[in-house]
Amino acid sequence: MVRPQVVLFGDSITQQSFSLGGWGAALADTYTRKADIVVRGYSGYNTRWALFLIHHIFPLDAIAPPLATTIFFGANDAALLGRTNERQHVPVSEYKENLKKIVNHLKDSSTFNGLCEISDIFYNYDTACFVSISKNIDCSNSTVIVLITPPPVDEEGRERFARSQYGENAGKLPERTNEMAGVYADQCIELAREMHIPCINIWSKMQETEGWQTLYLSDGLHLTPEGNTVVHKEVVKTLRDAGLKAEDMPFDFPHHSKIDGSCPEKAFQ
Amino acid sequence: MVRPQVVLFGDSITQQSFSLGGWGAALADTYTRKADIVVRGYSGYNTRWALFLIHHIFPLDAIAPPLATTIFFGANDAALLGRTNERQHVPVSEYKENLKKIVNHLKDSSTFNGLCEISDIFYNYDTACFVSISKNIDCSNSTVIVLITPPPVDEEGRERFARSQYGENAGKLPERTNEMAGVYADQCIELAREMHIPCINIWSKMQETEGWQTLYLSDGLHLTPEGNTVVHKEVVKTLRDAGLKAEDMPFDFPHHSKIDGSCPEKAFQ
Repeated sequence: MVRPQVVLFGDSITQQSFSLGGWGAALADTYTRKADIVVRGYSGYNTRWALFLIHHIFPLDAIAPPLATTIFFGANDAALLGRTNERQHVPVSEYKENLKKIVNHLKDSSTFNGLCEISDIFYNYDTACFVSISKNIDCSNSTVIVLITPPPVDEEGRERFARSQYGENAGKLPERTNEMAGVYADQCIELAREMHIPCINIWSKMQETEGWQTLYLSDGLHLTPEGNTVVHKEVVKTLRDAGLKAEDMPFDFPHHSKIDGSCPEKAFQ
Repeated sequence: MVRPQVVLFGDSITQQSFSLGGWGAALADTYTRKADIVVRGYSGYNTRWALFLIHHIFPLDAIAPPLATTIFFGANDAALLGRTNERQHVPVSEYKENLKKIVNHLKDSSTFNGLCEISDIFYNYDTACFVSISKNIDCSNSTVIVLITPPPVDEEGRERFARSQYGENAGKLPERTNEMAGVYADQCIELAREMHIPCINIWSKMQETEGWQTLYLSDGLHLTPEGNTVVHKEVVKTLRDAGLKAEDMPFDFPHHSKIDGSCPEKAFQ
């Protein structure tokens, strides 16, 4: 049995999701022995650059497409023109169009028509041997796609961070604003609505809590452990709503309590 | 390019390695964008039961065997006969023999002779298309195998844990002892020496620190975040000594600073 995968595709907020208290690591713990969490986070990337990766990460001929994929871009696309990080800027209409291309590619790469051949290995306890069996199974499948909006931006936090890094050379004007991140978040939500896929509005969700600026953001943009907890909770909720409840998913091998100490092979038939 | 994998194969101490502060999650962070950390931890399993899994987890015909594999069993094998968890007990000579079978299987499954065909996808920026190229590459390879001894056991911690779970019904005699865990650790080390593979003596390492019983163990057997940090540090050190230094390994795609904002396709050639 191949354990299914949940792929996290995004920018630094995804790449860093296995740091201490990270949302990716927490997700791996939630789906322990049920699904592998595969991180495909690329620090600094925007959706325009992400398009160069999708054929590699999600090949059209994949035998086992992901069970679910989160797409979490926009924080870099929303960097302002004419400011320090303008090379990362992607116009909001193109951001939406790029997200659409990513979603469509994921749909193409996770949908099969008909049967595919796989081989699996079983233990034959009469002969005490492993036997390999090839079989045709119905691989018609499609991945659960979850869009996540960019998080909110704390401009003061960004300014403090820039000063701590570059001192007097820090740009005087913000390279990102919370308002602009919200414009990108809106387009992400609209696309999800148009394409009938779930979307987590993390921009809005985080701002519901007093003090979100420093409670959830470590440098005005990236997540604190508490911010990671919010993302983890929302992703789990969304996956559950899409039918992927960890408690209903099978273990990849028997729970140890099901193994008979004197005749363990029975549990592995 | 396929990102290489590091597989963590073991019992609950491996299964739980993505919980908060876990050594597996920390390893994923250490090798971010360099290698995928794949958890194959099976709570309650001993080496006898692990043998049923190896053909599934490490198939002999794998195209890309793991870059490295940690094998971390023994905590359950060392459960005492005639006590609460005797069904998990495996005699120490069989434990060593089983570990040897696992190591030999890993060697068999990760060694190729000659060439194998892989296909990769490139972006042709003249034609603005993706092209798929099949090529024969030298797949002769063998995985770095790291044995890890069982951790020490704090018998008082186990007793407190049993009372908290079962109250008056808790067994009066310990189901594991530190001395017995040490006997299994010794056999693990001896096997590693015989097979010329690296081994982490976590049983001994943890006991070097005053107060290890509660500093490193949460219930006398499983790891606290501090205990996880010790394992993470030792695994990273061992992988580095075997040539797998994260800083020397390539990113799977260009660092964002290498991408020319006005001509991004160049970075993806």
